[in-house]
Amino acid sequence: MARSAQDRLHLGAIVTAGPGTGAFGAWRYPSSEQFRFLDAGYYQHVARTLEQGKFDLIFFADKLAVPGRFPRSVEDNLRNGSWGAAHPDPLLLLASIAAVTERIGLASTISTSYGAPFHVARAVSTLDHLSKGRAAWNVVTSTEDSEAQNFGLDKQRERGNRYDLADEFLRVVFGLWDTWEDGAVVMNRETGVVIDPSKVRPLNHEGKHFRVRGPLNLPRPPQGYPVIAQAGSSDRGRDFAARWSELIFTPQPILKAAQEFYDDIKSRAVNQGRDPNDIKVLPGAFVVVAESEGLAREKADLLKTFIDPAAMRTALSSMLELDLSEISPQTSASELLAARSVQGMQGHVDALAQIARADNLTLEQLGARFAHSLTFAHFAGSPVQVADQIEHWFRSGACDGFIVRPSYLPGSMEEFVRLVVPELQRRGLFRNEYEGRTLRDHLGLSRPPHGSWRKRFTQSSHELDLEVSASA
Amino acid sequence: MARSAQDRLHLGAIVTAGPGTGAFGAWRYPSSEQFRFLDAGYYQHVARTLEQGKFDLIFFADKLAVPGRFPRSVEDNLRNGSWGAAHPDPLLLLASIAAVTERIGLASTISTSYGAPFHVARAVSTLDHLSKGRAAWNVVTSTEDSEAQNFGLDKQRERGNRYDLADEFLRVVFGLWDTWEDGAVVMNRETGVVIDPSKVRPLNHEGKHFRVRGPLNLPRPPQGYPVIAQAGSSDRGRDFAARWSELIFTPQPILKAAQEFYDDIKSRAVNQGRDPNDIKVLPGAFVVVAESEGLAREKADLLKTFIDPAAMRTALSSMLELDLSEISPQTSASELLAARSVQGMQGHVDALAQIARADNLTLEQLGARFAHSLTFAHFAGSPVQVADQIEHWFRSGACDGFIVRPSYLPGSMEEFVRLVVPELQRRGLFRNEYEGRTLRDHLGLSRPPHGSWRKRFTQSSHELDLEVSASA
Repeated sequence: MARSAQDRLHLGAIVTAGPGTGAFGAWRYPSSEQFRFLDAGYYQHVARTLEQGKFDLIFFADKLAVPGRFPRSVEDNLRNGSWGAAHPDPLLLLASIAAVTERIGLASTISTSYGAPFHVARAVSTLDHLSKGRAAWNVVTSTEDSEAQNFGLDKQRERGNRYDLADEFLRVVFGLWDTWEDGAVVMNRETGVVIDPSKVRPLNHEGKHFRVRGPLNLPRPPQGYPVIAQAGSSDRGRDFAARWSELIFTPQPILKAAQEFYDDIKSRAVNQGRDPNDIKVLPGAFVVVAESEGLAREKADLLKTFIDPAAMRTALSSMLELDLSEISPQTSASELLAARSVQGMQGHVDALAQIARADNLTLEQLGARFAHSLTFAHFAGSPVQVADQIEHWFRSGACDGFIVRPSYLPGSMEEFVRLVVPELQRRGLFRNEYEGRTLRDHLGLSRPPHGSWRKRFTQSSHELDLEVSASA
Repeated sequence: MARSAQDRLHLGAIVTAGPGTGAFGAWRYPSSEQFRFLDAGYYQHVARTLEQGKFDLIFFADKLAVPGRFPRSVEDNLRNGSWGAAHPDPLLLLASIAAVTERIGLASTISTSYGAPFHVARAVSTLDHLSKGRAAWNVVTSTEDSEAQNFGLDKQRERGNRYDLADEFLRVVFGLWDTWEDGAVVMNRETGVVIDPSKVRPLNHEGKHFRVRGPLNLPRPPQGYPVIAQAGSSDRGRDFAARWSELIFTPQPILKAAQEFYDDIKSRAVNQGRDPNDIKVLPGAFVVVAESEGLAREKADLLKTFIDPAAMRTALSSMLELDLSEISPQTSASELLAARSVQGMQGHVDALAQIARADNLTLEQLGARFAHSLTFAHFAGSPVQVADQIEHWFRSGACDGFIVRPSYLPGSMEEFVRLVVPELQRRGLFRNEYEGRTLRDHLGLSRPPHGSWRKRFTQSSHELDLEVSASA
């Protein structure tokens, strides 16, 4: 798609709830305060920093278990503080952050596999109300058996089943949000009427996985519907995203592949009858910035000294669903990963395959890259150099912005806000001030009218649509 | 039990998440700001007011449906703004309040009937961490079919089954909290160790209702275990409370019955091998206070003008599980209620029966009393008069303090803090300053050592104990 000079990019930050950040060992960086990972003030400070930088949103992923795919990997992941090993409930973190911020969007992952739609509809709507319209829900289906085992199952469901369940889950949640029309709250002191009952209706959903009577016991969210984000990159995941998402977080380490992904998502959205501008594609970006190119290189080198190779191998094994302790580090990663299909995070595995192929890496080399910047685009250098790379991706139609992945916290985000944001603003690529109050305002998404989510089914899923109509 | 002159009472406040407060129509009081029921600042202001008054805790009940026991009662409950009709998620409210307070305890109801123990263990532990040790969980089993119908069931479970489920639910949650020993978080920058894996263990719970592998992905809560509160008043509920609770909220409108309840709970706790001081009994207290007795009477009269008789009838019908629209208002309530047994809130029904019997009330008269002050002790008058009544109950061994039930908000709590608290402090009945930082500190409860919850099973539930040991 052609990009006009007026277009501005969107920026989010993925802040890990827990001791790590994704960048292995970055908590050992001298200025890191990640040891405060159970302190509300730590997260609030990061969020306020991002708000000073006019970020669209702060985002917490989630994990419902200490990851443990292979023998001893629970122990390894605890020792290394891998993502998920210690992980406060992100919705509570966002409620805490909402109390001390005014504008920044608040996004949390919530799984559709292990909770009740009523709880999720109410919690996300509550966050939208408390924040006056800043909530987003990143829909995931969860990918690890270790998570399933905390909820009475032996194994995760297969991808197809997970997405079927997620589809129905979202229909129930949107249905519940829509059980209240706008303007249902009256609170007229004269008449004594609190809520106009003619504007509230039951849902009476009876589906394959869920039976939910409704109505929700909460008025329609300020944003109409909280913003829906999604990260699925498998074929089924992309279809799901094209139907439901307004934000897509995606691991895209290589520009050309990012452009293809971008075009694919936008055209799938069009096929669903949606305006392609109503779905924002934000690849992850790992950024190492400093006052000069040399300083940035020194910083990256220092960060690399904190990486424990064993920790890297454990995490990579988990991502690839393959026990790398039994495979030689000199094995060609590009051969091993060619078209590797996993039940879990297919998008990340595809991204790793791209990285391996681009530079013909061994497993050991791929591991080093992964431990430093995961599966994300990697922008490093002086503020001007980083802004150049961001602008290049943006202008070449690879994205609508980025989800920045910090290394050490809060320092790396303070530096991004101090060094990179002003350079992007100077180029007219990023807002100088928030223009609106809600996350939808920041993203340029209009507030959806009551009932409008049902339209998402009219283009390509007649069967689902009929099913919904019959029970609603 | 004899009470010494040094004993001090404990105060909580039950603040309704939603437009109402329990006192019917009190939102129509001129200074009420209850129309702000979706605004975080409204709840934060109430909590800060209570903290200025050195309250032990703020408490939110919960309801997982617009209540609707009888035909048209959903509509009625919406129109009247009955409790539950619009109800933000209380855990998010408490996270928001935690961000702007330092000392006050934060209690929320969470049902054991419609969620997963892993989610609850993580959320309550997160709140305890974010608040630095101020969280309490009020365990309920839920009582309404309308709630069950939002979670795939046709009807609520019977009481016995609900409590069996709750018992196992709590064992899983405590077990998950104990999957981490104290001191498991290391974060040693030199060695690179984040968490000591030797201090974290799986749970491997395999019970009748739940299978949960664990470990929880969160360190042991600051309070060891968050404080457990409970309100069950049926025989089964009292047994459950005596085993699990540290705080009991109870509807006790009549002093003599409150004394009997108090003695019964304390002796049940002793039978469970517990120190009776480790379980605090706090009846609800509806308070109307003003600068003088006359002003308080005028205020109560004004509040009564806001009561809609139809709303009262709907709520009373729901509580009694009896459609009162088909029964004459002149019927003797004491006869109707003698030993009435319900599947729902037995404690409240018993309290209504006590009120009806004490003054030989008709249904109409009972309804008027219920709409004004629900099923609670009712203290009204000048600050000295209210303090006299509070002191009398406390000194006569009827309670360890009270959960104050506001009428209009935030005004009625501002007045309680301005008028009643100083009078209680002057009498040496209530703290002048918080002496500790955690809710356990305020309540005089020690921090339980790791593993100590299992002792609660050694006295009287050998079978359960064996089952836990075998699977742990």
